[in-house]
Amino acid sequence: MRIVVLAGGIGGARFLRGLQRAAPDADVTVIGNTGDDIHLFGLKVCPDLDTVMYTLGGGINEEQGWGRQDESFKVKEELAAYGVGPEWFGLGDRDFATHIVRTQMIAAGYPLSAVTEALCARWQPGVRLLPMSDDRVETHVAVELDGERKVIHFQEYWVRLRASVAAEAVVPVGAEQAKPAPGVLEAVAAADVVLFPPSNPVVSVGTILAVPGIREAVAEAGVPVVGLSPIVGNAPVRGMADKVLAAVGVEATAAAVARHYGPGLLDGWLVDTVDTAAVAEVEAAGIRCRAVPLMMTDLAATAEMARQALALAEEVRG
Amino acid sequence: MRIVVLAGGIGGARFLRGLQRAAPDADVTVIGNTGDDIHLFGLKVCPDLDTVMYTLGGGINEEQGWGRQDESFKVKEELAAYGVGPEWFGLGDRDFATHIVRTQMIAAGYPLSAVTEALCARWQPGVRLLPMSDDRVETHVAVELDGERKVIHFQEYWVRLRASVAAEAVVPVGAEQAKPAPGVLEAVAAADVVLFPPSNPVVSVGTILAVPGIREAVAEAGVPVVGLSPIVGNAPVRGMADKVLAAVGVEATAAAVARHYGPGLLDGWLVDTVDTAAVAEVEAAGIRCRAVPLMMTDLAATAEMARQALALAEEVRG
Repeated sequence: MRIVVLAGGIGGARFLRGLQRAAPDADVTVIGNTGDDIHLFGLKVCPDLDTVMYTLGGGINEEQGWGRQDESFKVKEELAAYGVGPEWFGLGDRDFATHIVRTQMIAAGYPLSAVTEALCARWQPGVRLLPMSDDRVETHVAVELDGERKVIHFQEYWVRLRASVAAEAVVPVGAEQAKPAPGVLEAVAAADVVLFPPSNPVVSVGTILAVPGIREAVAEAGVPVVGLSPIVGNAPVRGMADKVLAAVGVEATAAAVARHYGPGLLDGWLVDTVDTAAVAEVEAAGIRCRAVPLMMTDLAATAEMARQALALAEEVRG
Repeated sequence: MRIVVLAGGIGGARFLRGLQRAAPDADVTVIGNTGDDIHLFGLKVCPDLDTVMYTLGGGINEEQGWGRQDESFKVKEELAAYGVGPEWFGLGDRDFATHIVRTQMIAAGYPLSAVTEALCARWQPGVRLLPMSDDRVETHVAVELDGERKVIHFQEYWVRLRASVAAEAVVPVGAEQAKPAPGVLEAVAAADVVLFPPSNPVVSVGTILAVPGIREAVAEAGVPVVGLSPIVGNAPVRGMADKVLAAVGVEATAAAVARHYGPGLLDGWLVDTVDTAAVAEVEAAGIRCRAVPLMMTDLAATAEMARQALALAEEVRG
């Protein structure tokens, strides 16, 4: 079975670990969000791709969900001593090496997809990890700060401000001109099922779908497209998805997110059992819906979520 | 008193520490060798400039004479795990930060001299540290390796091969087209004395003098130019200077190095007391010479060497 997953960072990576447990023989292609990429200290940092790679490759810091385990922060400490920031982005020494290799390869002319493949040759994540695009796309957020309207990088909004102010608009800068990375459209076209993990529907899955051609390919693949709600009981399971949902005029409810993706794209939708009342609303919108436990508390629970998503896909396929 | 010092790495840096002790009120400008600069992992590394900066700024690893104290090697370990080398160059985590800042500033358009000034704003070395040139100069060495004639970067010759094969030629690639960095010629013209520390006469001081205009400025400054022999008892005090002296056809003796610089450039020369027999030979070549202890065993001994060099300069000045 060929499964394509459109993944963001922590939530997507953890779901993928469950999917690997649930379908160990499946051929999984991950289309990773690169909208949260950022240039720091002259280095290209791809937080979501790295979170997937480290999580599936056994190098992740399990407690925080991002960054490397057994990490130290000497480089960052020294950069701060030089007065070079930003200090709010937590790059560790081991993590720095990944960005150094990536930046060196990009400077040598390799596209991000080739670089990602080279990095994965070490980590062996057990999936084919593709960036959504080799072109530069960076999500920016319009906010009001100190009485002024400013447009800041998503990472500054998310990490430095911790989404503490309202997002007035979320713009994936460069997305309109971006092309899907080599292999992305082919993987979607060859898929037996497409899954949206409980990743952020705006700045993760939404950004991937904003690359011209990807939404169309998913919609026209003619295979079940099933998503898992990142909203449980009217609040994000983790992260601050409600803040960016508001910016696109979507309520932070499991049903509203399903309608936001739309029946033209989504065939099936899993909501948590606390949101059982939403099932009828989602189905009324033309999307098959089931209520199952959606908390990724451990690998077994996460694998069960993946099983339920695949089961719903089979049910949709009919 | 305005003193200009043409310095390489470890030997030059240690001598400078002695000079600061000997002449605490002097205004010292260091013209640093950049011929051993190398691009590693996409980063610009300036070993000699950094050795001077770290040594005078209190950040040096005292035992090895280069690199940072309290150093760790996580980044390097990770680069090796990615299969990215070279592994023979020992960049530590703290040291990496310096190269990251430098590379980022150069990419932003700052010349190396401005970058060096910015880095020194943190380290406060107590001297004005100028790279010999803002232009790229990289010393290469012609060797016979595995039966083939190869031209390799000086660092590969020095660090990886530990000068274990004969150097057939030493070429400061780019030197002919290089211009002295801003401030270099002005500092020489304004100097009261110019010193050559016991640095490598070929790949350190020799490379600085190979930048068109610098040798001429030193020769024409009209002030005493005094050097300290890096050769004591027919062997280099440290390093492998004899290997590169052979490549330029110079014997590894204190007198031969003085003659190599030449009376047109050098007014005074200090040899070690074990080389007292060389004094007459050097003076016969038209260079004032004294035999004094030249082992930088501790700061007091090094300061005394600097005092002797300044005393010889005054004697030459007459």
